[in-house]
Amino acid sequence: MPCLTGFSNRFGRRSAPMGEFEIIARYFAPIAAPQALGLRDDAAFIAPPPGEDLVVTKDMLVEAVHFFAEDPPATIGAKALRVNLSDLAAKGAKPLGFLLGLALPSTVTEEWIAGFAQGIASDSQSYGIALLGGDTVRISGPITVSITAFGTVPRGAMVKRNSAKAGDVLYVTGCIGDAAIGLRLRLEPDAPWAKKLSPSSRKWLLDLYLVPWPRNILAEVVQHHAHAAMDVSDGFIGDLSKMMAGANLGADIRLADVPFSPATREAIALAPHLHEIALMGGDDYELLLAIDPKNEAAFLADMHDIGIPVTKIGTAKASANMVFRNEDGAQRIFTQGSFVHF
Amino acid sequence: MPCLTGFSNRFGRRSAPMGEFEIIARYFAPIAAPQALGLRDDAAFIAPPPGEDLVVTKDMLVEAVHFFAEDPPATIGAKALRVNLSDLAAKGAKPLGFLLGLALPSTVTEEWIAGFAQGIASDSQSYGIALLGGDTVRISGPITVSITAFGTVPRGAMVKRNSAKAGDVLYVTGCIGDAAIGLRLRLEPDAPWAKKLSPSSRKWLLDLYLVPWPRNILAEVVQHHAHAAMDVSDGFIGDLSKMMAGANLGADIRLADVPFSPATREAIALAPHLHEIALMGGDDYELLLAIDPKNEAAFLADMHDIGIPVTKIGTAKASANMVFRNEDGAQRIFTQGSFVHF
Repeated sequence: MPCLTGFSNRFGRRSAPMGEFEIIARYFAPIAAPQALGLRDDAAFIAPPPGEDLVVTKDMLVEAVHFFAEDPPATIGAKALRVNLSDLAAKGAKPLGFLLGLALPSTVTEEWIAGFAQGIASDSQSYGIALLGGDTVRISGPITVSITAFGTVPRGAMVKRNSAKAGDVLYVTGCIGDAAIGLRLRLEPDAPWAKKLSPSSRKWLLDLYLVPWPRNILAEVVQHHAHAAMDVSDGFIGDLSKMMAGANLGADIRLADVPFSPATREAIALAPHLHEIALMGGDDYELLLAIDPKNEAAFLADMHDIGIPVTKIGTAKASANMVFRNEDGAQRIFTQGSFVHF
Repeated sequence: MPCLTGFSNRFGRRSAPMGEFEIIARYFAPIAAPQALGLRDDAAFIAPPPGEDLVVTKDMLVEAVHFFAEDPPATIGAKALRVNLSDLAAKGAKPLGFLLGLALPSTVTEEWIAGFAQGIASDSQSYGIALLGGDTVRISGPITVSITAFGTVPRGAMVKRNSAKAGDVLYVTGCIGDAAIGLRLRLEPDAPWAKKLSPSSRKWLLDLYLVPWPRNILAEVVQHHAHAAMDVSDGFIGDLSKMMAGANLGADIRLADVPFSPATREAIALAPHLHEIALMGGDDYELLLAIDPKNEAAFLADMHDIGIPVTKIGTAKASANMVFRNEDGAQRIFTQGSFVHF
């Protein structure tokens, strides 16, 4: 549809460094799936495998809110796709395809677009998720990326967030807190703890903030063993609380059981306030899983075969009450955006 | 995922007038489909009807680019949904569901959100398209709406843009140019022609700019009779040229055949330069159809039954050459954003 700048700039394509059609033809059409029709149609079609449901999810990323303007464009592309892939993983869905919405200010360079497309293309291949279509528009504001991702599960098999059962054993994959502390490093590079951090920990944390590693390899494990699942995007404490509250359940969580990487442990040792940032910061893209205790042994055997670490963090309880405990057994109360010791 | 403002505002929900979860729970969850799981999951599932393909499309709208900040929020919501519905109509697809991505600056009021949601809810009902999920994020910039819409067609039956055949008869539904002239009225309210326009024409043009009326009622007609179709969103001349070029075809078009409403004719009579704005301005959301001449009679009979006007504008020709002619038979050359008389 036309821009409000009206007729003479309506196409916005001669004066701009690159027009919508050139961007699409040069950078996105070559990486698109056949059913995207060369991205020269206004729609694409998906022929879902017989007997399968489509799982659909949508995450938007906004410059200066979800990434920094100076981040490498390839990592912005990768992150935009991976946060959506992570949602598919949590639903037990196999990646199928995605639509890419891109709102670009006129100041964006062709080099930026090429880098962004390269990040998208590379992950599209690695994760087996095909570019099906999208929309490119002008914005007088921050770069905004809106991805809609599609996955498939056997009919009725999508794993929900709110379907945990009392007695389920709660697990989390990988480590919590790296990306959140990586973000603090970006925001407070001159903080005393930031300056004392070892170079390898620094790199680890910064890298995991830039690009997450979604757990799509676990889709079948999630599908076979989990009563409920979600990915940790808004913070471990908040997301686990949401998952339990959604099922009218609670849990008793020993905070000492929450898995941290050596880099996050080093950072917390230097600055103890980072402990709560690790727990509440988000951007982890690890999976929270509620496992039927009957399936626990099979689940752990599968996880062992795949080689992704997983940590038991508690048990879902019938009382709708979340209790988090420090190492000394004292309860710690987290509220939205703040916390209180008891 | 967390915002860059970091920990203390991470949830962004206490200080903001309304938080993401409150917005979703109060305004969008009540209008969502059952498979959206109360919008309390990160994904939704679609069980496509057996033997059907899903048609997917995505259109983004940006404040100050695709709509005015002062437009009524209900019409912004309606327009965002309808431009996507129009893409489904052009593909011959029956509306099924949609995902709503909404990037909101912190200055947006609850009243605005309520109005926007009301526009979405009302059209969701009228067009039979269910809200399946979405994402709400903060933006330090313009309101940005990103909708992904899903429709269904019998397997393999999606009508493409680039599949017209030589000899196809070219039709356009409804009238061309109203929204583009409505936009000029918004941009130049004090132009002499704008002041001379009759109140009823003025209202007609402004209304059609604010909210289009997509032709979803024609989905089956498109599916049954059209070799190729697209909706006119970027301008009649440009879109028809794209549709023909995509099939390596051309056409000889008499501009006097392009259908205009009485309001657009009145405006053009007052200011002849509006003729090219009507032809090239876009936002029409009418359908361009390439009809097999064998199907023409059946097509016209179906259109007559439905009661939507349709106008023959030419015939697709094997030579990949678009020729537009004035009433005197002289060729008129349109180039991107400008035009030349011969």
